[in-house]
Amino acid sequence: MQVGDLKGKTVMVAVSGGLDSCTIAHWLTQRGVQVVGYTADLGQPDEENIEDVRDRMLACGAVELIIGDLREEMALAGLQVIQCGARYEGGYWNTTGIGRHVVVQGMVPQMRQRQIAILGHGATGRGNDQVRFELAAQMLDPDVQVYAPWRDSEFLSAFGGRKEMIDYCGVHGLPVKATLDKPYSTDANVLGLTHEAGELEELTTPSSRVEAEMGAFPVDAPDAAEEFTVRFEQGLPVQINDAAVTAFEAMQIANEVGGKHGIGIGLHAVENRFVGIKSRGVYEAPGMELLGSCYEYLQQLLLDRRARRIYDQVAAYISEQIYQGYWFDTATQACRQFVAHMSQMATGTIAVSAYKGHVDYVAARDVPHSLYSADTASMEDVGEFDHRDSQGFLGVLGVGARALRRSGQTG
Amino acid sequence: MQVGDLKGKTVMVAVSGGLDSCTIAHWLTQRGVQVVGYTADLGQPDEENIEDVRDRMLACGAVELIIGDLREEMALAGLQVIQCGARYEGGYWNTTGIGRHVVVQGMVPQMRQRQIAILGHGATGRGNDQVRFELAAQMLDPDVQVYAPWRDSEFLSAFGGRKEMIDYCGVHGLPVKATLDKPYSTDANVLGLTHEAGELEELTTPSSRVEAEMGAFPVDAPDAAEEFTVRFEQGLPVQINDAAVTAFEAMQIANEVGGKHGIGIGLHAVENRFVGIKSRGVYEAPGMELLGSCYEYLQQLLLDRRARRIYDQVAAYISEQIYQGYWFDTATQACRQFVAHMSQMATGTIAVSAYKGHVDYVAARDVPHSLYSADTASMEDVGEFDHRDSQGFLGVLGVGARALRRSGQTG
Amino acid sequence: MQVGDLKGKTVMVAVSGGLDSCTIAHWLTQRGVQVVGYTADLGQPDEENIEDVRDRMLACGAVELIIGDLREEMALAGLQVIQCGARYEGGYWNTTGIGRHVVVQGMVPQMRQRQIAILGHGATGRGNDQVRFELAAQMLDPDVQVYAPWRDSEFLSAFGGRKEMIDYCGVHGLPVKATLDKPYSTDANVLGLTHEAGELEELTTPSSRVEAEMGAFPVDAPDAAEEFTVRFEQGLPVQINDAAVTAFEAMQIANEVGGKHGIGIGLHAVENRFVGIKSRGVYEAPGMELLGSCYEYLQQLLLDRRARRIYDQVAAYISEQIYQGYWFDTATQACRQFVAHMSQMATGTIAVSAYKGHVDYVAARDVPHSLYSADTASMEDVGEFDHRDSQGFLGVLGVGARALRRSGQTG
Amino acid sequence: MQVGDLKGKTVMVAVSGGLDSCTIAHWLTQRGVQVVGYTADLGQPDEENIEDVRDRMLACGAVELIIGDLREEMALAGLQVIQCGARYEGGYWNTTGIGRHVVVQGMVPQMRQRQIAILGHGATGRGNDQVRFELAAQMLDPDVQVYAPWRDSEFLSAFGGRKEMIDYCGVHGLPVKATLDKPYSTDANVLGLTHEAGELEELTTPSSRVEAEMGAFPVDAPDAAEEFTVRFEQGLPVQINDAAVTAFEAMQIANEVGGKHGIGIGLHAVENRFVGIKSRGVYEAPGMELLGSCYEYLQQLLLDRRARRIYDQVAAYISEQIYQGYWFDTATQACRQFVAHMSQMATGTIAVSAYKGHVDYVAARDVPHSLYSADTASMEDVGEFDHRDSQGFLGVLGVGARALRRSGQTG
Repeated sequence: MQVGDLKGKTVMVAVSGGLDSCTIAHWLTQRGVQVVGYTADLGQPDEENIEDVRDRMLACGAVELIIGDLREEMALAGLQVIQCGARYEGGYWNTTGIGRHVVVQGMVPQMRQRQIAILGHGATGRGNDQVRFELAAQMLDPDVQVYAPWRDSEFLSAFGGRKEMIDYCGVHGLPVKATLDKPYSTDANVLGLTHEAGELEELTTPSSRVEAEMGAFPVDAPDAAEEFTVRFEQGLPVQINDAAVTAFEAMQIANEVGGKHGIGIGLHAVENRFVGIKSRGVYEAPGMELLGSCYEYLQQLLLDRRARRIYDQVAAYISEQIYQGYWFDTATQACRQFVAHMSQMATGTIAVSAYKGHVDYVAARDVPHSLYSADTASMEDVGEFDHRDSQGFLGVLGVGARALRRSGQTG
Repeated sequence: MQVGDLKGKTVMVAVSGGLDSCTIAHWLTQRGVQVVGYTADLGQPDEENIEDVRDRMLACGAVELIIGDLREEMALAGLQVIQCGARYEGGYWNTTGIGRHVVVQGMVPQMRQRQIAILGHGATGRGNDQVRFELAAQMLDPDVQVYAPWRDSEFLSAFGGRKEMIDYCGVHGLPVKATLDKPYSTDANVLGLTHEAGELEELTTPSSRVEAEMGAFPVDAPDAAEEFTVRFEQGLPVQINDAAVTAFEAMQIANEVGGKHGIGIGLHAVENRFVGIKSRGVYEAPGMELLGSCYEYLQQLLLDRRARRIYDQVAAYISEQIYQGYWFDTATQACRQFVAHMSQMATGTIAVSAYKGHVDYVAARDVPHSLYSADTASMEDVGEFDHRDSQGFLGVLGVGARALRRSGQTG
Repeated sequence: MQVGDLKGKTVMVAVSGGLDSCTIAHWLTQRGVQVVGYTADLGQPDEENIEDVRDRMLACGAVELIIGDLREEMALAGLQVIQCGARYEGGYWNTTGIGRHVVVQGMVPQMRQRQIAILGHGATGRGNDQVRFELAAQMLDPDVQVYAPWRDSEFLSAFGGRKEMIDYCGVHGLPVKATLDKPYSTDANVLGLTHEAGELEELTTPSSRVEAEMGAFPVDAPDAAEEFTVRFEQGLPVQINDAAVTAFEAMQIANEVGGKHGIGIGLHAVENRFVGIKSRGVYEAPGMELLGSCYEYLQQLLLDRRARRIYDQVAAYISEQIYQGYWFDTATQACRQFVAHMSQMATGTIAVSAYKGHVDYVAARDVPHSLYSADTASMEDVGEFDHRDSQGFLGVLGVGARALRRSGQTG
Repeated sequence: MQVGDLKGKTVMVAVSGGLDSCTIAHWLTQRGVQVVGYTADLGQPDEENIEDVRDRMLACGAVELIIGDLREEMALAGLQVIQCGARYEGGYWNTTGIGRHVVVQGMVPQMRQRQIAILGHGATGRGNDQVRFELAAQMLDPDVQVYAPWRDSEFLSAFGGRKEMIDYCGVHGLPVKATLDKPYSTDANVLGLTHEAGELEELTTPSSRVEAEMGAFPVDAPDAAEEFTVRFEQGLPVQINDAAVTAFEAMQIANEVGGKHGIGIGLHAVENRFVGIKSRGVYEAPGMELLGSCYEYLQQLLLDRRARRIYDQVAAYISEQIYQGYWFDTATQACRQFVAHMSQMATGTIAVSAYKGHVDYVAARDVPHSLYSADTASMEDVGEFDHRDSQGFLGVLGVGARALRRSGQTG
């Protein structure tokens, strides 16, 4: 889909109100396209006054700006990511990945209501976000078409990069405050920030090049540890430090405490984008990391060996699915039913201590489905485990072990 | 196998020289069993003078003490664990798990040489180590039989726990220095320490109850970060901070630097033992964590999406295999061939910074098989990635996404 | 648990009414144990008159025989196995494996009602069934204890095998019709038969040594094919050849048609028992194979690549879980939630043809959630797939492929 | 890459000599492109005289036809697929999938030798083969560029389908014998045939619409069974029915015997193409199915539970990799090292019987690494398995089972 196909039509464009948004909105309008902007309030830490975004988008030619308050949805989605254990390639909490799905889920009903068939976005033509926007939208409404200026030859030849956009906005008097020297780009929502591109593309740029926005790097964190206690019920945090919380509040408080102590600030990863490119990111996700660690401590009490093994497989699968834009597909929906069964057991109170980037276990309490028993765990011959049984246990296992050796497979 | 079956026979007992070793050696000798002790030098940090072990074991009735210098083997096995990415349940570096295999591999040839058919060990009757001793031994020699006093009714009725052993040693004048109030038990080798049992069995005992032996807890670590640079060639560290190292030296230096900065000190886990019990451990593994983090940074440059996905599956499998005593079986041997292929590519220099328990990425250099390219990674339309191709890429993916929605599977 | 522990107590023994049942019931009664028999009607094809079982068990000393009509439960469990795709090691339909769980689920409430704490069974001491009985029972009621005569030293020394039991029954005038020369043993329920042991233990005994009880071997099947049409709704067969069916009726009809045409008759497998032994079995499961094939054809229309990949992983996991006696554990329960999501989509009509052991696809109709589209599938440039998009698709994929080569990883 | 980019350049085009090949060669030549044809002898059953292909291609304007004799390579690759257990989505033996890799591996050195940088192929723009050609080529030589007329707008507007090509050849007097009414299309090599497209796209077209070319459908197969004995050494067939064979001979003989008896003839599958489309295929692969079944019987004797579990995971992975064109990537290379370890043990003689589409187990002999032991397998208390050990085995397992229930996780 190229700009030539859009003439006379209306496009709902996901906008942040920044340089790209303004440029795209104006450029499309100039080409006879009617632009409706959609901006989501995802509780992002760097959020500016959203009314300013409205003014700016209208000044750039948009006929309307829709503001979607998706803060609770965003936080809840983050907690689902935690339940799913869905850290991409073992690290990144998928904060932007899940965020795109939340935004699209906010946009599609607005598009239907206004009978707008085309969704526009300013994601780059070699990243993951373009994939997430497009696949999520089409899985929710197959008649949605997607326009991505960064894959449109006409747009690409007009705008090679930031400089041309800044010049364009200057020439047309658009109200943007962008400067040329932005060293990297950032995507934000209440779950976290992802920094990439620009100077970060050089592997010799340290993670500390990034300015922490959700707290402090460990080296700048307080010298005293702070205790943090969270009560989970059926997989969701319902109390923090004894006060009842909503999903969004839980994430905010965890961001505050975690960020202050450098938890999840500055994680570096060279990861595999869906399009087959390696890219380098630096992440902030203090609340996800703090709550996620507590959740993991809780799960350690709940999942036996067999449950852990398949949970880990399913978690790895979901993690890749979210990253690649498949949160809504059949595979993920079925996996989420698996996770929901596990989550229903996840009730208990976990206390941890936060210190210079560390989340340390302090205590677990009131975990009704816990499998841990100090008596059974004891190395001494107490509790219901009978040491003599192990003699038979090993007698049985030994038959297989010796068969391996006798067959010449081992040894 | 019970003590009654051993009369007049020779048993090679794995001994550390501590309370259990002395009690078992003497008790067996008294019942007409000939005891040959085997103690391995695994480079453990808490190691005492090994000649003292000899004196003590002979004083307790052993006819011989064999000392196996397995320091290089132990370090190399640890590096293989790193290559395999084999952290049990996502955390524990399997330090004791792999250690048992190394010891058994040291013992079996000594047993053959002396025509000793029975291997004895002092591992508890509800733990993992009994399994590892027995299965590893039988996979190396199917005629090995195993005697485990802690599963022998006669021994169990004589010795309920530490107190009875201390009394026994006192009565018989055995040269042990054990005291009753040992708060937890520790297993050690150059890869790390595992602390468990005793007070640690209560989930309200904090990890900090443990006295760090391989360094300091993060809270006690220096306030200044320290850089650490390691050169890997085909999967193994060959230089640290520009000086050539053997496997054992690499592990020692990494232990020293890592331990000093609180890396991998005090990890808490409630884990699933092979016998189906949950147990709680506190771990120290500074060198494994430090080198392992560097190796992971290197692998992030090497493994594409497809390689990463199956590597993670194989890694999880090996991790469980080691934990359960199956390092030598067919499944693990085949998995190690898989890992060896990956390891052959793992050449490069990684610099990191160690600070209060954190290993932070600093730089990667000289990585010939790296897939990362700053040009390709760039979000701008440079390098060989053509943004316009993404239009077709998404056109293709969209057909499947829309089919899901149209079939009513999503939405 | 040995017979000495049972004196004066009541044991509910799972019985079939055969040689083992009679011997065990009488032998226990003689030792002061009160025996309550439990026999399940699982719709087994070789079932004798169940009242005869009652007479026989009472004659052998049992104080009561409980008859559980579990036919619908058994058939439904079989259909769940099909939904789960749970063929053990790729072949065996787990018919006996799931059957043990159904029986235990029938017994435990009866035990509670009568306040009987001990469950007895005649499964061998080296097989899978002992594991299934015990684990299933304890997951339903942790206070159940299990008595297994074939692991009891006293029973084992009295009865080396069939001969001693036949002699014993003769001496005590017990009403059994067993003969010495039974060439193999068979377990049966409406899902299928498993034949093993005896002559089948020799790998040179052909599968055809078995006498087909649920139909005919392919070589003896009719020369004309027969069409079979089944309508699934949300994962369950609701109509066969246009007539409405219950779960049990579906299984019976499928057994009849499938068996007649040699479907699933005589499958040979050398498989891995849970205890680590290889054993050889010959199987009959005509209805499972016939309905299972139809279900697979239906799923081929429903599962996209991503759903198929994780479904196959979950299916393999469940298959092992059932085989090992873990149908009721947390891992399997969570996996079943995954499968339930997939099953809800499994609506459609599948026609196949049965001929000498083959199930051949004929047609699929009325599959609302089908992803198949003849237009899209066409190799020609019709439908919504645009061939030109593939140019971009491959442009994108090519970047990764070339990077592999340039890094020296391939080529 | 479009035809306009090719003017004055040389393209090496993979050709079969049929309608597509002739049209493409002539059409390119007319546009100033120099065409070098490459045709591979893959031992395909329907192969015509290859010299006729040469004459025809030269008549259509090609400057040269290279003939690659890849028969042994093709057969060996098929045997590797068997070792890998790589059946796509559980069924299709990946015969065309692996075939494309073999062809590309034949072409690339020829291209280098002639300094030709562009590879052309006639695969459709929505199939799997275009992906395999392109990715395989670029993993072997990153400088290879690919031209695919069926993704070229100019070619696509000239040729909507067969009719336009036939007309074109008529007008230009090209020596093709194609007719309009070809009901479906077929790809062939010594491993098998894949039929798809045309009438097969309708799911109501039965598989029997296909004309069997490698033997007979079961319904047309002989009424008498035939025995087939194969000796494997280290994973490869070295003798069939006591006569030594090469890889290619083994595949040919197995095709002949298998095909005659309807083995692997007419398998229907609705499968997921890499591009996200469902397509329907009908397959013939008698030799793969016959040898593959024998290999599976052998492996059942070799792989214990742990080896089987991870082997199945790796096999599923490789299967998808081959299907998608990734036989040469790092993931597959590492997986093949895993499989090679397993294959080294795969020595033994397997006898089966072929009858109307069935491969039935007859006997296994001389399998040095077999884990099967009739004594151990026996249900009676003989051999080294001690029934009493199972008491302890279950005592141990029961602790975990009861903990699940007591925690409220089950029941």
